[in-house]
Order: sequence, then structure tokens, then C-alpha cells
Amino acid sequence: MSWEANVRKVTPYVAGEQPKGQGVIKLNTNESPYPPAPGVARVLREYDAAMLRKYPDSETEPLRSELAAYYGVEREQVFVGVGSDDVLAMAFLTFFNHPSLPVLFPDITYSFYDVWAELFRIPYQVQALDEQFHIKEEDYRKPNGGVIIPNPNAPTGELAPVSMFERILRANPDVVVIVDEAYIDFGGESCLKLIDQYENLLVVRTFSKSRALAGIRIGYAFGSKKLIRYLQDAKYSFNSYTMNSITLTAGVEAVRDDSYFREITDKVIATRERSKKELAALGFSFTDSKSNFIFAAHEKYRAKELFDALRAHHIYVRHWDKPRIENYLRISIGTDAEMNTLFAFLKEYIGA
Amino acid sequence: MSWEANVRKVTPYVAGEQPKGQGVIKLNTNESPYPPAPGVARVLREYDAAMLRKYPDSETEPLRSELAAYYGVEREQVFVGVGSDDVLAMAFLTFFNHPSLPVLFPDITYSFYDVWAELFRIPYQVQALDEQFHIKEEDYRKPNGGVIIPNPNAPTGELAPVSMFERILRANPDVVVIVDEAYIDFGGESCLKLIDQYENLLVVRTFSKSRALAGIRIGYAFGSKKLIRYLQDAKYSFNSYTMNSITLTAGVEAVRDDSYFREITDKVIATRERSKKELAALGFSFTDSKSNFIFAAHEKYRAKELFDALRAHHIYVRHWDKPRIENYLRISIGTDAEMNTLFAFLKEYIGA
Repeated sequence: MSWEANVRKVTPYVAGEQPKGQGVIKLNTNESPYPPAPGVARVLREYDAAMLRKYPDSETEPLRSELAAYYGVEREQVFVGVGSDDVLAMAFLTFFNHPSLPVLFPDITYSFYDVWAELFRIPYQVQALDEQFHIKEEDYRKPNGGVIIPNPNAPTGELAPVSMFERILRANPDVVVIVDEAYIDFGGESCLKLIDQYENLLVVRTFSKSRALAGIRIGYAFGSKKLIRYLQDAKYSFNSYTMNSITLTAGVEAVRDDSYFREITDKVIATRERSKKELAALGFSFTDSKSNFIFAAHEKYRAKELFDALRAHHIYVRHWDKPRIENYLRISIGTDAEMNTLFAFLKEYIGA
Repeated sequence: MSWEANVRKVTPYVAGEQPKGQGVIKLNTNESPYPPAPGVARVLREYDAAMLRKYPDSETEPLRSELAAYYGVEREQVFVGVGSDDVLAMAFLTFFNHPSLPVLFPDITYSFYDVWAELFRIPYQVQALDEQFHIKEEDYRKPNGGVIIPNPNAPTGELAPVSMFERILRANPDVVVIVDEAYIDFGGESCLKLIDQYENLLVVRTFSKSRALAGIRIGYAFGSKKLIRYLQDAKYSFNSYTMNSITLTAGVEAVRDDSYFREITDKVIATRERSKKELAALGFSFTDSKSNFIFAAHEKYRAKELFDALRAHHIYVRHWDKPRIENYLRISIGTDAEMNTLFAFLKEYIGA
């Protein structure tokens, strides 16, 4: 035997490429095309580095209370982690422990869910979206060990109504139901309003998209006090101090500057809606995305061909070589100028 | 049944108190009494906050390469995480998966080891230190599912020779052996030199103590390329982007400024050695700590009484109400001025 026999072997999640260098148009990881709130830069400039000799606040203050105040909930209903991936990983570990029943999630969805399930050896069963990439509500009414659904879904961008989640919650009082709202700020209605009513609901969010802070690693979640307490306990059993002091301070500024947040979010939404028209004119069809990306297929050109042509032109979008979605491109919404470069290239390529 | 039935219920690790306010002397969490390298402050002042809209480097660069260069290893032999707790948690999850044999560690040691074992449902068996708090090498020669030992051990501060670890490694080729070197910079000889010879050895370190950066959350580890690859894969299955961009840049400065690092480390060591003399004169006995704390018991006064008296006087040290160590205080090494205040109080209290 060798020490390798007992290693946990996994097939890790593969994130989108992070090309470096000038002149690259990066529309492949759903980052914001705009900088974060100006207060974040100020925090860094004025930060007293001497304080870093001390451990951060293990209760993730002052960010936790700031989020609670902004969203009108109690601080004991808020959990803060190192990006929503950290929050979701801890939630899988904490809540999805049924000995045999599978956790349910869509077949076309965030491709980290099955990775976490494999890592923690959680049984799971994917539920096929319908032909229009809509969630089939009835799929989530069978016996299960937990439910996780993103809203809007990724990479489709499809938004489901809060009423659907409420019906799924009513059908599943015995498991934890996670709604992954990474993209909710781009025009969706949140399930946050349901946390007082359903103590088994966890609503997960991130600063990486709408708050333009992918590089600082902040995710957060809302739930009943009881649910959040369990999640905190597991987190304290993993790492007492996940959030560094600088991030906790800078994050507060991003939350406080609500007018800037609305401004950049509105700009992304406006560019997205304009992009839909441009893409339609170019012969693309797509779901009615309420996120900061568009999931599009062309009537004539294969997605892989377009992906390669764009990449050769230093325009990065996302493509998965997976059943049902291999002919789609996921295009993050960039600045208007970046999108114009994309459309100009496609016009020439497709026209040629 | 309720959703609570399948929640992973744990007894979390309890960190030392983090008292706030002026006039507190904090000798309870082994933080550095000195600020981090001046380059860290410069990085924050000059940081381009606009870059934070993008995801960080998922390969934890530039810090990973900087650590490799400083310690004379290859970058594929280095792992970087959110404090050594994150590194250790991932290592437990990745390497300690024997179906039945227990992971071995000392009975008096870092109190997070059994917490991780419980969290991940890993069987474990503690091995009693001898009466002088020394590790009994023969305890680590029985069939096991893995070994983890801190060197110097905590909270005793006792250093074991590299030769002991080499013998333990030779006796355990079939499991991963972790040496937790959180305190090695304060006068110990590292097992780093053994990683080329033993591909099942993981050596774990932190920026939280000797590099005065507990607030920024950096831990790291060295091992064979194969071992580090497995750890990276598990980490990518948990959270692709654990390290934020600011930390990765600031951490580089802390590594580069070697003369500052040696200066503050030497100061802590000098204060520690002086503190031993002071404590001996006050009637304390203690292990010969090679860390940034002293684990001391008084000949007449119960540790709990001293702990309470010090706390009432705004001097925080650490005390555990646990068998074998309930009469010890763990006193972190502060500045000379802080230690003088401690000694003056003790002199008066004990003299009285």
C-alpha cells in the first residue's frame, strides 16, 4: 500500500481562463466591467497596516452588520464567506448529509454543484431543464436530501419567479433548500423575503458580480437564525478566521455606496438589453437573461467555431463542451465599447 | 422528520478572546507585538482598487513563486491558503481518509486537530505526551491513518529534533505525515529539508505569527509535487479563489523584506528568553519554549486564579480548563514594555 491509497481524489472545478496582457476583451467569467465603489480605494489608501498583526474579527464584523442593515435583516441571519463558493461549499458540508437520498439540482447549472457533491461524497441527481431551459418545478417534489437552484440560473440566465421557490419550499420542509442568487441584482426578484417564513431556506449572494469585487472574495448568505447558526458552527470547525481584516472593512464601503451600486448595475442591464438586440440581428437566439451574461446560440455557426475565432481575436467568452449546451456561448456583459468590438467582429465574421 | 436531522452538528473550535479598546495587553493569541514589514503598508497605499473587479490569480501568484524562491523549492512544492487553518483543514480532508485506522496526534496539542477530525468524521486517537510534555516517538509507530504533530508543539512550545520526524516518516511510508510548523521561525529547525526525500511529508506554516500578519490570512505548506497536486485538486474542488488579490500582493512584500523579518523575530526571541528568567524568579516553571509563547505553571498559585486576576487587570493570557494543563497559562510574548507590565503585576500579586 502507499500513502496515495487514502488520498481524496477529485476532478476539480475548472474556472474560466484568466488571460493577461493588454488588448484582451474578457467576457468569460462574468466579472463587472466597472471598478468597485470609490470607497474601496479609499479604505486601501488609508488602511492602518500595523493593525494586520492582529487576527481579524472572527464574527466577520463590521461587514456582517452592514449587510444586515442594508438588507433589513438581523445580523444573526447573515453569514459571510470567502466568495459565494466558500459559502456554498460550507453549506453543502453542513446541510447535505442525508445518508441515501440525493441532493437535487438542474442538469444545466453552475458546474461547481456536482464538484462539491463529489468532494463531500454526497449523493446527487440532476434534474433536466425543459427544452426552453426552464426549471421543471415538479422535479423538485420527490424525496430528496436537499435542493439547490440558482436564480437566475447559470449559464442560462433564466429567472424563475419567487412563487415557484415558495412552492418548492412548501414541498420540502424536511431538507435545506438553497437559492443561489449570484446574479439576482441584474433584474431579478429575490427570495430573501421568504427567510422569516421558511427556516430551511438559504439565500446565497456574492460581491464578485454586481459589486465589482471578484478580486476581494466576499460571498454572503441569508437564512433563519437557526440555519445560519449551524452554518457558522461548521465554519468555525473549518477555519475561525476566513475573512481578512482589509476585506471586511472594504466590503462595508461597497455596501454603503448604494447610488454607485445602482449606477453600475443599471449600466450593465442597459448594455445587456442592447446586446440582445445586436445578437438577434446577427442571427443568435438566446434565453431572456436577467443576469450579467447572455447564453446564445447561432443559427448557422457552431459555438466552438465562434469561440475559437473570437479567442484568436483576443475576445474571450465561455464555451462548454457538454451535452445540450455545446452549441451555446456564454457572453459576459462588458462595457459598451467592449461589446461594440465583439459585435463588429461577429458582423465581419458572420457576414464573410 | 425535520431539515435539522441531516445537519452536520459540530462543537466548533473556540479561539482566544479578542478584547477591544485601549489599554488592553493582549498576550492570548500568539500574535506578533510588532507591525508587519513596511512594504505591506506601501502595497495597500498604492493598490489599484479598479483591478479588484477581476478574479484573483487562482494559482495564488505572485505569492506562491515568491515563497518558492525564498525557501529554495519549486513552486509546485508550495501550497497557499487562508491561514494555516485553511491549509490544515484542506489537508485533513484530502489526506486523512483511511476507512478505519485512526489519525494520530498528541493529547496536548493544537486544539483544532480533533475539531477537524470530528467535522470530517475522521477516526483519531490522541497519544499522551510524557510527564515533561515530550512527544513519545514510539506512539507514532503503530498502524494509523495519518500523523500530525506541531513542531514546536502548542501550547507547550516544546521543540522536537528533525531526526525524530525523520524516524517517524521512515516508520510511516503509507500515510501522510503533517508537521505543523506555525512557530518554527522562533528558533526551531525545520523539516522542510526532508520534502525531497519523503513524498508523504507536508510541512505547514503561517504568516500569522512570525510575519506579523494574522489579519491578512496567509498560510502555506511545502511537500512533494505529487502531494501538493492532490491538495491543490481538493482546494479547487472547494473554492477556486480562496486568496484575494490584495493579500497575494501584500504577502510578497512580507517575504521579500528578510532583514525586517529577522529583526522582529530576533526581538521576540530575546524577549522570550528574558521572560523565562523573570518568570522563574517569580516562582513559575515552564517548558523550554522555542515559540513565541511560554507555557507556565506557578508553584503556589492556581492558573485559573492568576488568569482571572490578570484579566481583571486588562492583561489577557490563555488558559484551558482541560486535564493535565488546567494549571498552566500560555503567555504570548509581547513587547518588552508589555511584558514588564505583566511582570510588575505578577510581582505585586504574588508578593501580596
